[in-house]
Amino acid sequence: MNQNPILVEAWRGDSVESAHRGALAVVDADGGVVLALGDTQRPIFPRSAVKVLQALPLVASGAADALRLGDEELALACASHNGEPAHVATAAGMLAKAGVDASVLECGTHWPYREAFQREMAARGETPGPLHNNCSGKHAGFVCLACHRAGATPLLDFAKGYVRTDHPVMREVTRSLQATTGWDLSKAPQGIDGCSIPTFGIPLQHLAQAFARVGTGAGLGADEARAALRLRRAVAKAPFMVAGTERFDTRVMQRLGERVFCKVGAEGVYCAALPGHGLGVALKIDDGNTARAAEVVMAALIEAFVALDGAEAGFMRSLSDVPLRNWNGIEVGALRASAFLRAQARAPSS
Amino acid sequence: MNQNPILVEAWRGDSVESAHRGALAVVDADGGVVLALGDTQRPIFPRSAVKVLQALPLVASGAADALRLGDEELALACASHNGEPAHVATAAGMLAKAGVDASVLECGTHWPYREAFQREMAARGETPGPLHNNCSGKHAGFVCLACHRAGATPLLDFAKGYVRTDHPVMREVTRSLQATTGWDLSKAPQGIDGCSIPTFGIPLQHLAQAFARVGTGAGLGADEARAALRLRRAVAKAPFMVAGTERFDTRVMQRLGERVFCKVGAEGVYCAALPGHGLGVALKIDDGNTARAAEVVMAALIEAFVALDGAEAGFMRSLSDVPLRNWNGIEVGALRASAFLRAQARAPSS
Repeated sequence: MNQNPILVEAWRGDSVESAHRGALAVVDADGGVVLALGDTQRPIFPRSAVKVLQALPLVASGAADALRLGDEELALACASHNGEPAHVATAAGMLAKAGVDASVLECGTHWPYREAFQREMAARGETPGPLHNNCSGKHAGFVCLACHRAGATPLLDFAKGYVRTDHPVMREVTRSLQATTGWDLSKAPQGIDGCSIPTFGIPLQHLAQAFARVGTGAGLGADEARAALRLRRAVAKAPFMVAGTERFDTRVMQRLGERVFCKVGAEGVYCAALPGHGLGVALKIDDGNTARAAEVVMAALIEAFVALDGAEAGFMRSLSDVPLRNWNGIEVGALRASAFLRAQARAPSS
Repeated sequence: MNQNPILVEAWRGDSVESAHRGALAVVDADGGVVLALGDTQRPIFPRSAVKVLQALPLVASGAADALRLGDEELALACASHNGEPAHVATAAGMLAKAGVDASVLECGTHWPYREAFQREMAARGETPGPLHNNCSGKHAGFVCLACHRAGATPLLDFAKGYVRTDHPVMREVTRSLQATTGWDLSKAPQGIDGCSIPTFGIPLQHLAQAFARVGTGAGLGADEARAALRLRRAVAKAPFMVAGTERFDTRVMQRLGERVFCKVGAEGVYCAALPGHGLGVALKIDDGNTARAAEVVMAALIEAFVALDGAEAGFMRSLSDVPLRNWNGIEVGALRASAFLRAQARAPSS
């Protein structure tokens, strides 16, 4: 792994206590590079950051229309959600429209990541099921696509094993990922994601270009361009569904609406489309820290590349320069986008 | 921050998905360097890794004897514990011996870090207090020292503000830190720790030497050398108290006893004394990741520098080469000490 620059610093008092290195690409739909820091050509696993690319077939195939999926359901198909009651109910509703229940899901089970929600569930005597998995909406989307493609085969038979690389549904999802990124996945590094579907190594340059395409429609087929627009609008209308309470993606899209489509991935990945500027963004923190590094970088890039009014800029700055408080509420430091990142990430003169 | 080498790799499939850089020093009590990787001269905040150095005055002063503190209580004074019922009860017992209760504590309150313990508490309808703070044993030790030093002043009056740099108790604790590390703290970078006591920037070289001294007594005053031995033995006899269920420090010292005294700190710090080999160890992960990086490095160093039998070596390898499983239990990757670290960390030929 080459040496990438420091993008985020964790300060304590007047000292940098810890630092996060990483790489990022900001490109247009033709692949023209607006900003590239660090190694943007090395394949990285994008993890959940590309769920919108994996959800395109659900819409482009006609499955979403056939099952009358609404904005909340389409947003959930692109989500890494908190497993809050509304997320669980919406995922269950998607499966019900396909005529099945949660037993079809192959994503596995985990407690909601947010500790407060775990405690609330435990206090109610509840335990999680696969609907609480942060990927349950994506998987419900796969099942809805399977429902559309099953033909005369019973859905439970057709859907079985849908997480496998060679399943017809996963092949369709993977083709979408390859088409939008323009990266040959047959030769890409491959791994298994947390929810058991395949994840493929793709360079940041190609991921950023894919998101520029999602934001503009340029470079996509007509059906895929319409699907991308519909998914982005669904998330802008139902941003709670894509993440949840206090989450970065939800807060940013509640505030900025269709002007930003951003999506977190595990291990320090973030992707975004900035449709009004024709740009796509992709970044990876070397050490895999999402919550305190990838989010800070994404906030700084939105500040730099999206036209914001003063209040919006202040809101984004609160996400790129974050006070750290200790258990007594004393401010002891801050998470900050590095001076290097700030200096590099100046919007090009127009 | 200079470029430090990669010490830990997070693999997914056949690819390195994320990596952790850092620096480490292995030295003897005279400061002789056995191994130094990365920048070991830059001051870093050791955080909770130096609790044993901060607990020396509790024993050396005679306070521990006067209050008849036992092994479990002394181990808890060196602990970053899980806030499990036994930890909470032991901290409360220390305070009771000093004649006060938890209201004296100035560490603040947080839920136990382990999610399972949060859920168990929530299911019982409990909420945390300062005794659950992972530092409550250290703070109870400070209060016991204050009890010994209060003289004619009522303890609650004397102890008030004990977390402040200029309080007599904290001055005594800081003098211990300075004496053992041989580092002038009056000129060191300073910050406020999570539990509100000061933390000082100290180079890894000096931290490692301090732990070599703790392990051997060399370079310490006679009272401090006896105190160090007593604290190490207390932790070896009550390793549950220094951390808790499933924690690295507890598991390693349950297995290896007095042959290793290791202690985690926040933000990717680890220190250890290897008394049988006369060595001290200190390491810092650049990005601050403790659970999946600092622990892996410490495990690899124990493998390299401590004489282990085959079963012990296998146990340590399970902590330095850790399979990663997804939500379906499928092995998807591993956390591994880097080949660079393995190659460098070969015990010197004896």
